Amino acid sequence: MAKLLAAFVVLLALAAPSIAGDPDMLQDICVADYKSLKGPLRLNGFPCKRPENVTANDFFFPGLINPGNTGNAVGSLVTAVNVNNLPGLNTLGVSISRIDYAPWGLNPPHTHPRATEIIFVLEGSLDVFVFPRGLVHFQKNNGNSPAVAIAAFNSQLPGTQSIAETLFGAASPAVPSDTLARAFQIDGGMVEFIKSKFQHK
Amino acid sequence: MAKLLAAFVVLLALAAPSIAGDPDMLQDICVADYKSLKGPLRLNGFPCKRPENVTANDFFFPGLINPGNTGNAVGSLVTAVNVNNLPGLNTLGVSISRIDYAPWGLNPPHTHPRATEIIFVLEGSLDVFVFPRGLVHFQKNNGNSPAVAIAAFNSQLPGTQSIAETLFGAASPAVPSDTLARAFQIDGGMVEFIKSKFQHK
Amino acid sequence: MAKLLAAFVVLLALAAPSIAGDPDMLQDICVADYKSLKGPLRLNGFPCKRPENVTANDFFFPGLINPGNTGNAVGSLVTAVNVNNLPGLNTLGVSISRIDYAPWGLNPPHTHPRATEIIFVLEGSLDVFVFPRGLVHFQKNNGNSPAVAIAAFNSQLPGTQSIAETLFGAASPAVPSDTLARAFQIDGGMVEFIKSKFQHK
Amino acid sequence: MAKLLAAFVVLLALAAPSIAGDPDMLQDICVADYKSLKGPLRLNGFPCKRPENVTANDFFFPGLINPGNTGNAVGSLVTAVNVNNLPGLNTLGVSISRIDYAPWGLNPPHTHPRATEIIFVLEGSLDVFVFPRGLVHFQKNNGNSPAVAIAAFNSQLPGTQSIAETLFGAASPAVPSDTLARAFQIDGGMVEFIKSKFQHK
Amino acid sequence: MAKLLAAFVVLLALAAPSIAGDPDMLQDICVADYKSLKGPLRLNGFPCKRPENVTANDFFFPGLINPGNTGNAVGSLVTAVNVNNLPGLNTLGVSISRIDYAPWGLNPPHTHPRATEIIFVLEGSLDVFVFPRGLVHFQKNNGNSPAVAIAAFNSQLPGTQSIAETLFGAASPAVPSDTLARAFQIDGGMVEFIKSKFQHK
Amino acid sequence: MAKLLAAFVVLLALAAPSIAGDPDMLQDICVADYKSLKGPLRLNGFPCKRPENVTANDFFFPGLINPGNTGNAVGSLVTAVNVNNLPGLNTLGVSISRIDYAPWGLNPPHTHPRATEIIFVLEGSLDVFVFPRGLVHFQKNNGNSPAVAIAAFNSQLPGTQSIAETLFGAASPAVPSDTLARAFQIDGGMVEFIKSKFQHK
Repeated sequence: MAKLLAAFVVLLALAAPSIAGDPDMLQDICVADYKSLKGPLRLNGFPCKRPENVTANDFFFPGLINPGNTGNAVGSLVTAVNVNNLPGLNTLGVSISRIDYAPWGLNPPHTHPRATEIIFVLEGSLDVFVFPRGLVHFQKNNGNSPAVAIAAFNSQLPGTQSIAETLFGAASPAVPSDTLARAFQIDGGMVEFIKSKFQHK
Repeated sequence: MAKLLAAFVVLLALAAPSIAGDPDMLQDICVADYKSLKGPLRLNGFPCKRPENVTANDFFFPGLINPGNTGNAVGSLVTAVNVNNLPGLNTLGVSISRIDYAPWGLNPPHTHPRATEIIFVLEGSLDVFVFPRGLVHFQKNNGNSPAVAIAAFNSQLPGTQSIAETLFGAASPAVPSDTLARAFQIDGGMVEFIKSKFQHK
Repeated sequence: MAKLLAAFVVLLALAAPSIAGDPDMLQDICVADYKSLKGPLRLNGFPCKRPENVTANDFFFPGLINPGNTGNAVGSLVTAVNVNNLPGLNTLGVSISRIDYAPWGLNPPHTHPRATEIIFVLEGSLDVFVFPRGLVHFQKNNGNSPAVAIAAFNSQLPGTQSIAETLFGAASPAVPSDTLARAFQIDGGMVEFIKSKFQHK
Repeated sequence: MAKLLAAFVVLLALAAPSIAGDPDMLQDICVADYKSLKGPLRLNGFPCKRPENVTANDFFFPGLINPGNTGNAVGSLVTAVNVNNLPGLNTLGVSISRIDYAPWGLNPPHTHPRATEIIFVLEGSLDVFVFPRGLVHFQKNNGNSPAVAIAAFNSQLPGTQSIAETLFGAASPAVPSDTLARAFQIDGGMVEFIKSKFQHK
Repeated sequence: MAKLLAAFVVLLALAAPSIAGDPDMLQDICVADYKSLKGPLRLNGFPCKRPENVTANDFFFPGLINPGNTGNAVGSLVTAVNVNNLPGLNTLGVSISRIDYAPWGLNPPHTHPRATEIIFVLEGSLDVFVFPRGLVHFQKNNGNSPAVAIAAFNSQLPGTQSIAETLFGAASPAVPSDTLARAFQIDGGMVEFIKSKFQHK
Repeated sequence: MAKLLAAFVVLLALAAPSIAGDPDMLQDICVADYKSLKGPLRLNGFPCKRPENVTANDFFFPGLINPGNTGNAVGSLVTAVNVNNLPGLNTLGVSISRIDYAPWGLNPPHTHPRATEIIFVLEGSLDVFVFPRGLVHFQKNNGNSPAVAIAAFNSQLPGTQSIAETLFGAASPAVPSDTLARAFQIDGGMVEFIKSKFQHK
C-alpha cells in the first residue's frame, strides 16, 4: 500500500503548493516578501515585507487586460492573480482569476480544495454564479464567440485539481493503470489510451 | 455614559444586520431559506432550504447588467450581490458587488467590518486592487467618463460603514454634536452644518 | 451556461449534505437532536438535545464490529460513524470510518471536501497514513486476503466525492457527455460506455 | 467501559452548557433572545433578538459593584458576566468576571476549556496576568485583606472545570472511587474522605 | 486611481502593524521573542522564545498603576497592554488597555478592525459595556472628575483606527482634500482648516 | 501572587509545547522540517520542507505494531503519532495514538486542551467513544486481559494534562502544598503523602 500512497504524496509534492482555508489575517497587512527566506527555511504561507518597504504597487496588479491563449485541448485558459504574483494578498484571504474561453470552450471539471469560487461573466447578462469550496465544477462556453469571466476566491491561493489531468496525466509516479481501470470500470487499453492524451502535460 | 453608548447601539440596530468573518461552511450547500423562520425566532445567519427545494437558480444571479444610478451627492452607486439576494451564498463566505462611478465620482471613505475586498476595474487596464478587512478605504474615478468596477469579498455579507454618514447622518439617536466637535476639533456650528447635508439620508 | 451549472448544483442537492471545515464547538456538548426541527426549518448543522435528555449512549457507537460487504465493483466498503449516526459528534469536529477491502480491493480515487483523513491499517504493521483535506486519494489492498482500516477525520461529517461516480454516474441531470469527452479527450462512445457502468449507482 | 464513560458524559450534561472557542460573529450584532425558542428546539449558541427589539441595555451590565460573598471553603467567589446574563455578548466572543478573594483566599485550580483568561488585579499595582486556554491555573490572595480582580475571556461563555470538585464532587454518577484511588495513588478510604468534603456541592 | 489607493496603502504601512481576528493558539505557550529575527525576515505574528528561556515575568505586566496623561485635545489617553509589551500574550488572542479620561474627556470615534471590546468602568457602578468588532464607537466622561476604565479585547493586538485622525491627519500621502470635501460635503477651505488641527499628529 | 503564577507558568514551560485548536492548513502540504531552524528562532508550529525534499515516508508512520509497556502505577501507556514524529501531519490538524491497557488498567483523568478525542476500542465490539475538547475524561479496562484502543484527535498535537501529576507531581516550582490542601480540603500531611507518590515522575 505504501507504494500507491507514495504516488499520491509525490503527486502533491510536484504540484505548486497552494494556500487555502485561510485563517484570519494576523496584521493590517503582511505583504509577501519573496526574498527574505534564506537557506532551506520555508514557512506556512509567506513572511512579511518590512513596513518601510511596502508600496502601493504591492496591492496593485495591472496584468489582466490581455486575453489568455485558448489554443489548447479544452479551449480555455485561466490567468490567476493570487499571493504568488500579488504580494499584498498575503494573509488577506482573497484572490481573483481571469478565465478566457474559446467558442464552445470548456474549463474542465476541477476542484479548489480550499476556496469557494464566485464567478462573474463579463459578456452579455453579467451573470453571477457560485461554486462551493472543494466540490467538482466546470464551465462551458455555449456560444460561437470567445467569452471572458472573472472568478473570485475566498483564499489567497485556492489551489486547483483538474480531475482528468490529476488522474491520467500524473508522472513520477503515475497513478497505476489497474487502479484507474477498476475505478472507471474500463480495460487497461482504454486507460493507456487516455493517459497518452495527457502525456505532454 | 449609558446614553451615548445607547446611541452607538441603536445605530447598529437600525443598520441591516450583516454577516462577516464567516466561519467555514457547515454543509456542501445551505441555501438560505428566507421563509422558514416563524414567529420571533431569528438565527445567526440563515436556515437552509430543504435539499429537494434547491434549484440552479439559487446559485445564479442575473441582475448586474444594468448600470447603477450615480446621480447622487458622491457620484457613485454600489449594487451588491450577497446572501440577502443570492441565497446560494449562505455559508459559502463570498459575495460580489458592482460599483458604478460617474465622471470624477467618489465611493467615499468606508470600512467593511468583516471582509477583505478585492476590486477589479472593468475599464481600461483591468487593474486589480485589494483592501484589507476592516480598514478605511475609498475609490475615485479620475476620468471624465463613467467607470465600472467589480468588487469581491470573503464574506457572504461584508457589512459597510460609510464614515461620514455613520457619524453625521445617524438619527434616533444622533451622535452628539459636542462629541463630533471635539473629535474633529471644529465648532458646533460646523458640526450642525455638516449634519444638515446628511439630513435626508 | 446556466443549464450546465444547474447540472452541477442539482448534483449537490441530491448528495447527502455533509458537514466540514468545522468551526469550533459552541458548547461543552451539543448532542444532535434529529427530531426537534418542525416544519420546513433546516439549520446549518444540527440543533442540540436538551441537557436532561442527553445520555451516555449519545457518545457511544457499538456498530463497527461487523465487516462491510465488499462484494461490489471496486472491492471495498466504507462504514461511516459521523454526526448522522453518532449524535454526540455534533459540533465536536471529528468522525471515524471502518474501511473493508476485499483481496486486491480498491477504495477508488475520491476527495473529502472538508476534512483531512488519518488512516490506521489494522492488519500487519498497523501503519498510519495521512491524506490532506480536499486532495484526491485512494487506497488499494495489495494482498490476497481481506484488509481492514480505521480512518479518522477532523470534521463531524467530512463529505466524500467519488471522482468516477460523480462525473459518470450523476443523474438528473447527468454531466453532459460532450463535456466529459472533451475533459478526458475521448470520444462520445467511450463516454457512454463508461456511463453505462455507473448506471445503477 | 461504557458505564464509566457514561459517568463522564452525564457529568457534562449536568453542567451548565458553556460556549467557547468561539467562531467569528455572524452579524454586526446578534443579541441573545432567551425567549424565542419554543418547544424542545435548542441551538448551538443563542438565536438573535429582532433588531427592532434591541436596546442599549442589551449591551450594558450594571451589576458588578457588589462584592461577592467569599464566606466559603476556599475563600473566593467568581461573579461572571457572560452571554447568559449580558445578551449583547452573543456571537461577540468576549466575557468578563469579577473575582473576590477573602484574606488568604484561593480561587482553586481549574481550567477554562474554551478561552484564554487575562486578569487585572484592582488593588495595589494593578498587575496584569494571562492564563492560556485550557490549562490548569489558580490564584491566591497572599495578603491579610480582601482582594478583587477583573478577569476577561476571549469567549462569550468560557466554561469552567474546577478540578477537585469535578473529580470528587460529581454525583449521578460519581467518578468511581477505585479510579480516583489509582489516579491519585491513595487508598479508597482517603478517596471517600475527600469525597465527603464535597458532598453538599 | 492607483495614486489614491497608494495613499490608502502607505497610510497603513506607516501605522504600527496590528494583530487581529486571531486564529487559535498553536502551542500551550509561544512567548513572543522580539530578538530572534535576524536580517529582513518578518513573520505574520511573532516567533516563540525557547521554552527554557520563558519566565513568569513573560506573563506578567506591572505597569498599569500610573494614570495616563489626559492633557491633550480630546481629554483621554489609552495605555495598552498587548503582544508588543507583554510577550506571553503571543498566540493567546487577548489583550487589555487602561483608559484614562479627564473631566468631560472623550475617547473619540474609532474602530478596532480585529477585535470586540468589553469595557469595565472602575469608578462608581462598575458598569460593563461591549463594542462589536470593527464597528465605530466612542466613550465620553460625563462627569467633572477624572475617570478610568479597563478595556479587554479578543485579540493579542486589536488595532485601532481613530476616524478623524485617519482621514484628516494622514501624511505622506494625505487623503486628498477634494475627496474629503465630497465625502463630508464641505468646501475645500473647511477641509484644510480641519487638517490644520491634526498637523502635528 | 506572582510567585504562584510563576509556578503555573514554568510548569507549562517544562511541558513539551503542544499544538491545538489548529487553524486551517495553509498549503496542500507543509511537511515539518525539524532541521531548518537555525539559532534561537522558534516558530508557532513548524516550518515546511522544500517540496523537492518531500517523500512518501513523510506521510507514513510504521511504528504502532508494538504494544506499549503498561508496567507502571496506572497500568496504561499512550504511544502518540503526532507532528513531532510524523512530519506530514504539520498543518493538517489531525493526529492519532495507540493506548495499551493492562488488565484493570486505567488511563487516569486528564484533558486535551486543544482537541476533541474519538476513541476506537480494538478488542471485542470495536466500540467508538468521543470526548469533547478540553474536558476531563479517563478510560478503564474493566477486563482481566490487556486491551488496546486507537484514539484520533482533531489537532496535529493535542496536548495532554494529567490532572493528578500536574497538581501533585510538578517540580521547580511545585504547586504549594497549602494551595492543594485547601483545594482538596485535606490536611498538609495528606498532600505531602500524595506528592511523595509522584516524586520520581
